[in-house]
Amino acid sequence: MPYGSRRRSAHIVMADTGWPGCVRSLKGVILDLCGVLYDSGEGDGVAIPGAIEAVKRLKESDLQLRFCTNETQATRKNFVAKLQRLGFDISVSEVFPPAPAAIAVLKQRGLRPHLLVHDGLLPEFDAVDKTNPNCVIVGDAAENFSYQNLNEAFRVLIGLERPVLFSLGQGRYYKETDGLKLDVGVYMKALEYACDLKAEVIGKPSPTFFQSVLNDMGLKPNEALMIGDDLVNDVGGAQYCGMKGVQVRTGKYR
Amino acid sequence: MPYGSRRRSAHIVMADTGWPGCVRSLKGVILDLCGVLYDSGEGDGVAIPGAIEAVKRLKESDLQLRFCTNETQATRKNFVAKLQRLGFDISVSEVFPPAPAAIAVLKQRGLRPHLLVHDGLLPEFDAVDKTNPNCVIVGDAAENFSYQNLNEAFRVLIGLERPVLFSLGQGRYYKETDGLKLDVGVYMKALEYACDLKAEVIGKPSPTFFQSVLNDMGLKPNEALMIGDDLVNDVGGAQYCGMKGVQVRTGKYR
Repeated sequence: MPYGSRRRSAHIVMADTGWPGCVRSLKGVILDLCGVLYDSGEGDGVAIPGAIEAVKRLKESDLQLRFCTNETQATRKNFVAKLQRLGFDISVSEVFPPAPAAIAVLKQRGLRPHLLVHDGLLPEFDAVDKTNPNCVIVGDAAENFSYQNLNEAFRVLIGLERPVLFSLGQGRYYKETDGLKLDVGVYMKALEYACDLKAEVIGKPSPTFFQSVLNDMGLKPNEALMIGDDLVNDVGGAQYCGMKGVQVRTGKYR
Repeated sequence: MPYGSRRRSAHIVMADTGWPGCVRSLKGVILDLCGVLYDSGEGDGVAIPGAIEAVKRLKESDLQLRFCTNETQATRKNFVAKLQRLGFDISVSEVFPPAPAAIAVLKQRGLRPHLLVHDGLLPEFDAVDKTNPNCVIVGDAAENFSYQNLNEAFRVLIGLERPVLFSLGQGRYYKETDGLKLDVGVYMKALEYACDLKAEVIGKPSPTFFQSVLNDMGLKPNEALMIGDDLVNDVGGAQYCGMKGVQVRTGKYR
Protein backbone atom coordinates (compact mmCIF):
# COMPACT_ATOMS: atom_id res chain seq x y z
CA MET A 1 0.00 0.00 0.00
CA PRO A 2 1.53 3.36 -0.93
CA TYR A 3 2.30 5.70 1.94
CA GLY A 4 -0.16 8.33 0.81
CA SER A 5 -3.17 6.03 0.81
CA ARG A 6 -2.29 4.53 4.16
CA ARG A 7 -1.92 7.98 5.60
CA ARG A 8 -5.37 9.00 4.44
CA SER A 9 -7.13 5.85 5.57
CA ALA A 10 -5.65 5.66 9.04
CA HIS A 11 -5.39 9.41 9.65
CA ILE A 12 -1.97 9.03 11.17
CA VAL A 13 1.39 10.64 10.49
CA MET A 14 4.42 8.40 10.80
CA ALA A 15 6.80 10.11 13.18
CA ASP A 16 9.68 7.68 12.78
CA THR A 17 11.28 5.37 10.26
CA GLY A 18 11.55 1.60 10.61
CA TRP A 19 7.79 1.01 10.52
CA PRO A 20 7.80 -2.41 8.79
CA GLY A 21 10.23 -3.87 11.37
CA CYS A 22 8.09 -2.49 14.15
CA VAL A 23 4.93 -4.08 12.77
CA ARG A 24 6.55 -7.53 12.77
CA SER A 25 7.59 -7.30 16.44
CA LEU A 26 4.48 -5.45 17.61
CA LYS A 27 2.80 -7.01 20.65
CA GLY A 28 1.06 -4.06 22.26
CA VAL A 29 -0.55 -0.71 21.54
CA ILE A 30 -0.82 2.27 23.89
CA LEU A 31 -3.48 4.81 23.03
CA ASP A 32 -3.80 8.39 24.18
CA LEU A 33 -7.43 9.25 24.92
CA CYS A 34 -8.39 12.93 24.58
CA GLY A 35 -7.97 14.05 20.96
CA VAL A 36 -7.48 10.44 19.81
CA LEU A 37 -10.63 8.60 20.93
CA TYR A 38 -12.79 11.55 21.97
CA ASP A 39 -12.89 15.34 22.02
CA SER A 40 -13.44 16.96 25.40
CA GLY A 41 -15.99 19.70 25.90
CA GLU A 42 -19.36 20.25 27.50
CA GLY A 43 -20.66 17.23 29.43
CA ASP A 44 -18.74 14.11 28.44
CA GLY A 45 -17.48 15.48 25.11
CA VAL A 46 -17.92 13.43 21.93
CA ALA A 47 -16.38 10.22 20.59
CA ILE A 48 -14.28 10.73 17.43
CA PRO A 49 -15.93 8.93 14.48
CA GLY A 50 -14.57 5.38 14.12
CA ALA A 51 -12.81 5.39 17.51
CA ILE A 52 -15.26 3.11 19.36
CA GLU A 53 -14.98 0.52 16.54
CA ALA A 54 -11.18 0.86 16.46
CA VAL A 55 -10.90 0.03 20.18
CA LYS A 56 -13.24 -2.94 19.67
CA ARG A 57 -11.10 -4.29 16.82
CA LEU A 58 -7.86 -3.86 18.77
CA LYS A 59 -9.40 -5.80 21.67
CA GLU A 60 -10.35 -8.61 19.28
CA SER A 61 -6.78 -8.76 17.94
CA ASP A 62 -3.90 -10.55 19.68
CA LEU A 63 -2.33 -7.20 20.58
CA GLN A 64 -2.29 -6.00 24.16
CA LEU A 65 -4.00 -2.66 24.68
CA ARG A 66 -3.53 0.08 27.28
CA PHE A 67 -4.63 3.70 27.54
CA CYS A 68 -2.16 6.37 28.63
CA THR A 69 -3.48 9.84 29.46
CA ASN A 70 -2.46 13.06 31.17
CA GLU A 71 -6.07 13.63 32.25
CA THR A 72 -6.15 15.12 35.78
CA GLN A 73 -9.56 16.77 36.03
CA ALA A 74 -11.27 13.64 37.43
CA THR A 75 -10.46 10.49 39.39
CA ARG A 76 -9.54 7.48 37.27
CA LYS A 77 -12.83 5.83 38.19
CA ASN A 78 -14.97 8.79 37.11
CA PHE A 79 -12.87 9.33 34.00
CA VAL A 80 -13.32 5.71 32.86
CA ALA A 81 -17.06 5.91 33.63
CA LYS A 82 -17.23 8.84 31.20
CA LEU A 83 -15.42 6.86 28.50
CA GLN A 84 -17.87 4.00 29.02
CA ARG A 85 -20.82 6.42 28.71
CA LEU A 86 -19.33 7.58 25.40
CA GLY A 87 -19.52 3.92 24.26
CA PHE A 88 -15.94 2.69 24.74
CA ASP A 89 -15.17 -0.81 26.03
CA ILE A 90 -12.48 0.35 28.46
CA SER A 91 -11.94 -0.71 32.09
CA VAL A 92 -10.20 1.06 34.99
CA SER A 93 -7.22 -1.32 35.07
CA GLU A 94 -6.37 -0.53 31.44
CA VAL A 95 -6.13 3.25 31.97
CA PHE A 96 -2.96 5.00 33.19
CA PRO A 97 -3.37 8.63 34.32
CA PRO A 98 -0.74 10.60 36.31
CA ALA A 99 -2.51 10.78 39.71
CA PRO A 100 -2.17 7.09 40.74
CA ALA A 101 1.47 7.21 39.62
CA ALA A 102 1.98 10.32 41.76
CA ILE A 103 0.46 8.60 44.79
CA ALA A 104 2.92 5.72 44.33
CA VAL A 105 5.83 8.18 44.24
CA LEU A 106 4.61 9.96 47.40
CA LYS A 107 4.43 6.64 49.25
CA GLN A 108 7.85 5.53 48.03
CA ARG A 109 9.52 8.80 49.10
CA GLY A 110 7.51 9.52 52.26
CA LEU A 111 6.15 12.81 50.94
CA ARG A 112 2.99 14.68 51.99
CA PRO A 113 1.58 16.91 49.25
CA HIS A 114 0.00 20.31 49.09
CA LEU A 115 -2.43 19.92 46.17
CA LEU A 116 -3.09 22.50 43.47
CA VAL A 117 -5.46 20.42 41.37
CA HIS A 118 -8.98 20.30 39.93
CA ASP A 119 -11.80 19.68 42.43
CA GLY A 120 -12.69 16.55 40.44
CA LEU A 121 -9.29 15.01 41.19
CA LEU A 122 -9.31 15.58 44.96
CA PRO A 123 -11.05 12.27 45.91
CA GLU A 124 -8.12 10.39 44.32
CA PHE A 125 -5.96 11.76 47.17
CA ASP A 126 -8.47 11.07 49.98
CA ALA A 127 -6.30 8.42 51.61
CA VAL A 128 -3.07 10.42 51.25
CA ASP A 129 -1.59 12.21 54.27
CA LYS A 130 -1.61 15.91 53.44
CA THR A 131 -0.76 17.33 56.87
CA ASN A 132 2.32 19.55 57.19
CA PRO A 133 3.10 19.25 53.45
CA ASN A 134 6.69 18.75 52.25
CA CYS A 135 6.00 18.90 48.50
CA VAL A 136 3.55 20.44 46.02
CA ILE A 137 1.58 18.64 43.32
CA VAL A 138 0.20 20.72 40.47
CA GLY A 139 -2.36 19.28 38.03
CA ASP A 140 -4.66 20.73 35.40
CA ALA A 141 -6.55 22.80 37.98
CA ALA A 142 -8.24 25.07 35.38
CA GLU A 143 -10.46 27.58 37.24
CA ASN A 144 -8.69 26.64 40.48
CA PHE A 145 -5.57 28.39 39.12
CA SER A 146 -6.49 31.62 40.92
CA TYR A 147 -3.82 34.09 42.04
CA GLN A 148 -4.54 33.15 45.63
CA ASN A 149 -4.19 29.39 45.03
CA LEU A 150 -0.97 29.74 42.99
CA ASN A 151 0.42 32.07 45.66
CA GLU A 152 -0.44 29.52 48.36
CA ALA A 153 1.39 26.73 46.50
CA PHE A 154 4.34 29.11 46.02
CA ARG A 155 4.49 29.92 49.73
CA VAL A 156 4.51 26.22 50.64
CA LEU A 157 7.38 25.57 48.20
CA ILE A 158 9.48 28.63 49.13
CA GLY A 159 9.09 27.72 52.79
CA LEU A 160 10.56 24.22 52.37
CA GLU A 161 14.22 23.54 53.02
CA ARG A 162 14.30 21.15 50.05
CA PRO A 163 11.34 22.17 47.85
CA VAL A 164 9.88 19.40 45.65
CA LEU A 165 7.39 20.21 42.90
CA PHE A 166 5.55 17.46 40.99
CA SER A 167 3.70 18.40 37.82
CA LEU A 168 1.04 16.01 36.47
CA GLY A 169 2.05 16.48 32.83
CA GLN A 170 3.67 19.49 31.20
CA GLY A 171 1.21 20.40 28.41
CA ARG A 172 1.05 23.98 27.16
CA TYR A 173 -2.62 24.06 26.18
CA TYR A 174 -5.48 21.89 24.97
CA LYS A 175 -8.55 22.44 22.87
CA GLU A 176 -12.09 22.33 24.17
CA THR A 177 -15.26 22.98 22.22
CA ASP A 178 -15.21 26.67 23.25
CA GLY A 179 -11.52 27.25 22.41
CA LEU A 180 -7.96 26.75 23.65
CA LYS A 181 -7.32 26.34 27.37
CA LEU A 182 -4.05 26.74 29.30
CA ASP A 183 -2.73 23.42 30.57
CA VAL A 184 -0.77 22.45 33.68
CA GLY A 185 2.68 22.99 32.11
CA VAL A 186 2.13 26.74 32.06
CA TYR A 187 1.64 26.84 35.84
CA MET A 188 4.48 24.38 36.35
CA LYS A 189 6.76 26.90 34.58
CA ALA A 190 5.33 29.73 36.71
CA LEU A 191 6.20 27.92 39.96
CA GLU A 192 9.59 26.81 38.61
CA TYR A 193 10.50 30.45 37.93
CA ALA A 194 9.08 31.76 41.20
CA CYS A 195 11.06 29.25 43.30
CA ASP A 196 14.07 28.81 40.98
CA LEU A 197 13.66 25.03 40.80
CA LYS A 198 12.87 22.28 38.30
CA ALA A 199 9.64 20.30 38.57
CA GLU A 200 9.49 16.51 38.34
CA VAL A 201 6.96 15.59 35.66
CA ILE A 202 4.67 12.64 36.41
CA GLY A 203 2.73 11.54 33.32
CA LYS A 204 3.67 11.75 29.67
CA PRO A 205 6.44 12.31 28.46
CA SER A 206 8.17 10.96 31.59
CA PRO A 207 10.08 7.75 30.73
CA THR A 208 9.17 6.32 34.17
CA PHE A 209 5.50 6.77 33.33
CA PHE A 210 5.72 5.00 29.95
CA GLN A 211 7.84 2.26 31.54
CA SER A 212 5.13 1.54 34.12
CA VAL A 213 2.68 0.87 31.28
CA LEU A 214 5.20 -1.38 29.52
CA ASN A 215 5.77 -3.23 32.79
CA ASP A 216 2.04 -3.77 33.15
CA MET A 217 1.96 -5.32 29.66
CA GLY A 218 5.17 -7.27 30.23
CA LEU A 219 6.60 -5.87 26.99
CA LYS A 220 9.90 -4.42 25.85
CA PRO A 221 9.81 -0.89 24.38
CA ASN A 222 10.39 -2.08 20.81
CA GLU A 223 7.32 -4.33 21.09
CA ALA A 224 4.94 -1.45 21.76
CA LEU A 225 3.43 1.38 19.75
CA MET A 226 2.19 4.70 21.20
CA ILE A 227 -0.55 6.58 19.34
CA GLY A 228 -1.34 10.16 20.33
CA ASP A 229 -2.12 13.68 19.10
CA ASP A 230 0.74 15.45 20.90
CA LEU A 231 4.05 15.38 19.04
CA VAL A 232 6.15 16.14 22.13
CA ASN A 233 4.38 14.36 25.00
CA ASP A 234 3.00 11.31 23.15
CA VAL A 235 5.21 10.65 20.12
CA GLY A 236 8.48 12.18 21.35
CA GLY A 237 8.09 10.71 24.83
CA ALA A 238 7.45 7.21 23.45
CA GLN A 239 10.38 7.40 21.04
CA TYR A 240 12.68 8.56 23.84
CA CYS A 241 11.80 5.28 25.62
CA GLY A 242 12.53 3.16 22.54
CA MET A 243 8.92 2.69 21.46
CA LYS A 244 7.46 3.60 18.14
CA GLY A 245 5.22 6.66 18.17
CA VAL A 246 2.64 7.86 15.68
CA GLN A 247 0.64 11.06 15.64
CA VAL A 248 -3.03 11.09 14.70
CA ARG A 249 -4.45 13.99 12.72
CA THR A 250 -7.29 14.57 15.19
CA GLY A 251 -7.23 16.48 18.50
CA LYS A 252 -4.64 19.24 18.72
CA TYR A 253 -2.93 18.22 15.44
CA ARG A 254 -2.44 21.33 13.26
CA MET B 1 36.55 54.71 57.16
CA PRO B 2 36.94 50.92 57.30
CA TYR B 3 34.63 48.90 55.05
CA GLY B 4 32.92 47.20 57.98
CA SER B 5 31.87 50.38 59.70
CA ARG B 6 30.68 51.95 56.45
CA ARG B 7 28.61 48.88 55.72
CA ARG B 8 26.90 49.08 59.07
CA SER B 9 26.26 52.79 59.03
CA ALA B 10 24.89 53.03 55.50
CA HIS B 11 23.16 49.64 55.48
CA ILE B 12 24.39 48.93 51.99
CA VAL B 13 26.35 46.10 50.43
CA MET B 14 28.90 47.06 47.81
CA ALA B 15 28.13 44.99 44.76
CA ASP B 16 31.11 46.06 42.69
CA THR B 17 34.70 47.20 43.05
CA GLY B 18 36.05 50.61 42.07
CA TRP B 19 33.94 52.54 44.56
CA PRO B 20 36.42 55.41 45.25
CA GLY B 21 36.70 56.24 41.53
CA CYS B 22 32.95 56.18 41.20
CA VAL B 23 32.49 58.61 44.08
CA ARG B 24 34.80 61.15 42.43
CA SER B 25 32.84 61.11 39.15
CA LEU B 26 29.40 60.76 40.71
CA LYS B 27 26.86 63.28 39.42
CA GLY B 28 23.57 61.49 39.92
CA VAL B 29 21.79 58.92 42.09
CA ILE B 30 18.90 56.66 41.05
CA LEU B 31 16.85 55.20 43.90
CA ASP B 32 14.54 52.24 43.85
CA LEU B 33 11.42 52.93 45.93
CA CYS B 34 9.68 49.87 47.41
CA GLY B 35 12.00 48.14 49.89
CA VAL B 36 14.43 51.08 49.81
CA LEU B 37 12.39 54.12 50.85
CA TYR B 38 9.22 52.41 52.07
CA ASP B 39 7.70 49.00 52.71
CA SER B 40 4.44 48.24 50.92
CA GLY B 41 1.46 46.78 52.74
CA GLU B 42 -1.95 47.79 53.96
CA GLY B 43 -2.93 51.33 53.00
CA ASP B 44 0.10 53.31 51.87
CA GLY B 45 2.64 51.08 53.63
CA VAL B 46 5.31 52.64 55.87
CA ALA B 47 8.40 54.78 55.27
CA ILE B 48 11.66 53.04 56.18
CA PRO B 49 13.33 54.85 59.13
CA GLY B 50 15.76 57.52 57.88
CA ALA B 51 14.55 57.36 54.26
CA ILE B 52 12.60 60.67 54.25
CA GLU B 53 15.65 62.48 55.65
CA ALA B 54 17.98 60.71 53.17
CA VAL B 55 15.93 61.94 50.19
CA LYS B 56 15.91 65.46 51.67
CA ARG B 57 19.71 65.44 52.03
CA LEU B 58 20.26 64.15 48.51
CA LYS B 59 18.05 66.93 47.16
CA GLU B 60 20.12 69.50 49.08
CA SER B 61 23.34 68.11 47.58
CA ASP B 62 24.63 68.91 44.09
CA LEU B 63 23.77 65.36 42.92
CA GLN B 64 20.88 64.81 40.52
CA LEU B 65 18.20 62.47 41.87
CA ARG B 66 15.70 60.20 40.12
CA PHE B 67 13.47 57.34 41.26
CA CYS B 68 13.29 54.15 39.22
CA THR B 69 10.60 51.60 40.09
CA ASN B 70 8.86 48.54 38.67
CA GLU B 71 5.63 49.53 40.45
CA THR B 72 2.63 48.76 38.21
CA GLN B 73 -0.31 48.57 40.61
CA ALA B 74 -1.15 52.28 40.29
CA THR B 75 -0.79 55.16 37.83
CA ARG B 76 2.36 57.23 38.25
CA LYS B 77 0.28 60.13 39.56
CA ASN B 78 -1.44 58.05 42.25
CA PHE B 79 1.79 56.30 43.14
CA VAL B 80 3.63 59.60 43.68
CA ALA B 81 0.69 60.95 45.70
CA LYS B 82 1.13 57.95 48.02
CA LEU B 83 4.85 58.68 48.41
CA GLN B 84 4.03 62.30 49.25
CA ARG B 85 1.49 61.16 51.88
CA LEU B 86 4.26 59.04 53.41
CA GLY B 87 6.29 62.27 53.77
CA PHE B 88 8.66 62.11 50.79
CA ASP B 89 9.56 65.23 48.80
CA ILE B 90 9.17 63.53 45.40
CA SER B 91 7.43 64.85 42.27
CA VAL B 92 5.89 63.01 39.30
CA SER B 93 8.59 64.07 36.83
CA GLU B 94 11.31 62.48 38.98
CA VAL B 95 9.69 59.01 39.04
CA PHE B 96 10.20 56.41 36.28
CA PRO B 97 7.81 53.40 36.34
CA PRO B 98 7.36 50.91 33.44
CA ALA B 99 3.88 51.96 32.23
CA PRO B 100 4.77 55.36 30.70
CA ALA B 101 7.79 53.70 29.03
CA ALA B 102 5.48 51.01 27.64
CA ILE B 103 3.11 53.62 26.23
CA ALA B 104 6.04 55.27 24.44
CA VAL B 105 7.03 51.89 22.92
CA LEU B 106 3.44 51.23 21.76
CA LYS B 107 3.32 54.62 20.03
CA GLN B 108 6.71 54.15 18.42
CA ARG B 109 5.83 50.70 17.02
CA GLY B 110 2.15 51.29 16.23
CA LEU B 111 0.94 48.58 18.64
CA ARG B 112 -2.46 48.24 20.31
CA PRO B 113 -2.32 46.32 23.60
CA HIS B 114 -4.50 43.76 25.31
CA LEU B 115 -3.91 44.58 28.98
CA LEU B 116 -3.46 42.05 31.77
CA VAL B 117 -2.73 44.52 34.56
CA HIS B 118 -3.92 45.73 37.97
CA ASP B 119 -7.16 47.76 38.00
CA GLY B 120 -5.20 50.63 39.54
CA LEU B 121 -2.98 50.87 36.44
CA LEU B 122 -5.77 50.94 33.85
CA PRO B 123 -6.28 54.76 33.85
CA GLU B 124 -2.64 55.15 32.68
CA PHE B 125 -3.73 53.52 29.39
CA ASP B 126 -6.97 55.54 28.99
CA ALA B 127 -5.73 57.40 25.91
CA VAL B 128 -4.19 54.29 24.29
CA ASP B 129 -5.99 52.57 21.38
CA LYS B 130 -6.82 49.06 22.60
CA THR B 131 -9.16 47.98 19.78
CA ASN B 132 -8.25 44.84 17.81
CA PRO B 133 -5.11 44.25 19.91
CA ASN B 134 -1.85 43.17 18.27
CA CYS B 135 0.20 42.71 21.43
CA VAL B 136 -0.23 41.84 25.11
CA ILE B 137 1.04 43.81 28.11
CA VAL B 138 1.32 41.98 31.41
CA GLY B 139 1.91 43.88 34.66
CA ASP B 140 1.70 43.01 38.36
CA ALA B 141 -2.02 42.22 38.11
CA ALA B 142 -2.16 40.39 41.48
CA GLU B 143 -5.78 39.23 42.07
CA ASN B 144 -6.51 39.93 38.37
CA PHE B 145 -4.27 36.93 37.52
CA SER B 146 -7.29 34.60 37.35
CA TYR B 147 -7.29 31.51 35.11
CA GLN B 148 -9.84 33.22 32.89
CA ASN B 149 -7.80 36.42 32.49
CA LEU B 150 -4.53 34.59 31.82
CA ASN B 151 -6.33 32.34 29.32
CA GLU B 152 -7.75 35.41 27.58
CA ALA B 153 -4.28 36.98 27.23
CA PHE B 154 -2.98 33.62 25.94
CA ARG B 155 -5.73 33.41 23.30
CA VAL B 156 -4.92 36.92 22.05
CA LEU B 157 -1.22 36.04 21.75
CA ILE B 158 -1.67 32.62 20.14
CA GLY B 159 -4.09 34.17 17.63
CA LEU B 160 -1.54 36.74 16.39
CA GLU B 161 0.59 36.07 13.33
CA ARG B 162 3.53 37.78 15.05
CA PRO B 163 2.78 37.60 18.78
CA VAL B 164 4.40 40.33 20.91
CA LEU B 165 4.40 40.13 24.71
CA PHE B 166 5.57 43.02 26.89
CA SER B 167 6.21 42.38 30.57
CA LEU B 168 6.36 45.34 32.97
CA GLY B 169 9.29 43.96 34.97
CA GLN B 170 10.29 40.35 35.51
CA GLY B 171 10.29 40.01 39.31
CA ARG B 172 9.67 36.59 40.89
CA TYR B 173 7.99 37.77 44.10
CA TYR B 174 7.84 40.62 46.55
CA LYS B 175 7.14 40.96 50.24
CA GLU B 176 4.07 42.58 51.70
CA THR B 177 3.15 42.89 55.34
CA ASP B 178 1.10 39.65 55.17
CA GLY B 179 3.76 37.60 53.35
CA LEU B 180 5.34 36.91 49.96
CA LYS B 181 3.38 37.63 46.77
CA LEU B 182 3.97 36.32 43.25
CA ASP B 183 5.20 39.06 40.92
CA VAL B 184 4.68 39.70 37.20
CA GLY B 185 7.72 37.66 36.06
CA VAL B 186 5.99 34.44 37.07
CA TYR B 187 3.08 35.13 34.72
CA MET B 188 5.45 36.38 32.03
CA LYS B 189 7.13 32.95 32.15
CA ALA B 190 3.74 31.23 32.03
CA LEU B 191 2.75 33.06 28.82
CA GLU B 192 6.21 32.59 27.31
CA TYR B 193 5.89 28.82 27.75
CA ALA B 194 2.27 28.66 26.58
CA CYS B 195 3.06 30.53 23.34
CA ASP B 196 6.70 29.45 22.89
CA LEU B 197 7.98 33.03 22.71
CA LYS B 198 10.22 35.45 24.59
CA ALA B 199 8.73 38.50 26.29
CA GLU B 200 10.21 41.98 25.96
CA VAL B 201 10.77 43.36 29.46
CA ILE B 202 9.95 47.05 30.01
CA GLY B 203 11.22 48.29 33.37
CA LYS B 204 14.23 47.17 35.38
CA PRO B 205 16.59 45.45 34.46
CA SER B 206 16.05 46.51 30.83
CA PRO B 207 19.04 48.60 29.65
CA THR B 208 16.67 50.77 27.57
CA PHE B 209 14.76 51.60 30.74
CA PHE B 210 17.86 52.61 32.71
CA GLN B 211 19.14 54.58 29.71
CA SER B 212 15.94 56.64 29.57
CA VAL B 213 16.59 57.74 33.17
CA LEU B 214 20.22 58.58 32.36
CA ASN B 215 19.05 60.57 29.31
CA ASP B 216 16.66 62.52 31.52
CA MET B 217 19.56 63.43 33.83
CA GLY B 218 21.93 64.10 30.91
CA LEU B 219 24.50 61.79 32.50
CA LYS B 220 26.81 59.02 31.31
CA PRO B 221 26.42 55.61 32.99
CA ASN B 222 29.67 55.93 34.95
CA GLU B 223 28.43 59.20 36.46
CA ALA B 224 25.37 57.56 38.06
CA LEU B 225 24.72 55.23 40.98
CA MET B 226 21.72 52.90 41.32
CA ILE B 227 20.56 51.93 44.82
CA GLY B 228 18.05 49.08 45.20
CA ASP B 229 17.08 46.00 47.20
CA ASP B 230 16.98 43.56 44.24
CA LEU B 231 20.36 42.10 43.32
CA VAL B 232 19.30 41.11 39.79
CA ASN B 233 16.90 43.81 38.67
CA ASP B 234 18.43 46.83 40.44
CA VAL B 235 22.13 46.14 41.00
CA GLY B 236 22.77 43.71 38.12
CA GLY B 237 20.70 45.73 35.67
CA ALA B 238 22.54 48.95 36.54
CA GLN B 239 25.97 47.31 36.31
CA TYR B 240 25.08 45.82 32.92
CA CYS B 241 24.56 49.42 31.71
CA GLY B 242 27.90 50.60 33.09
CA MET B 243 26.51 52.22 36.23
CA LYS B 244 27.54 51.46 39.76
CA GLY B 245 24.98 49.49 41.73
CA VAL B 246 24.59 48.99 45.47
CA GLN B 247 22.16 46.82 47.37
CA VAL B 248 20.47 48.03 50.54
CA ARG B 249 19.84 45.62 53.39
CA THR B 250 16.16 46.53 53.64
CA GLY B 251 13.22 45.27 51.53
CA LYS B 252 13.66 41.81 50.07
CA TYR B 253 17.37 41.61 51.11
CA ARG B 254 18.02 38.24 52.81
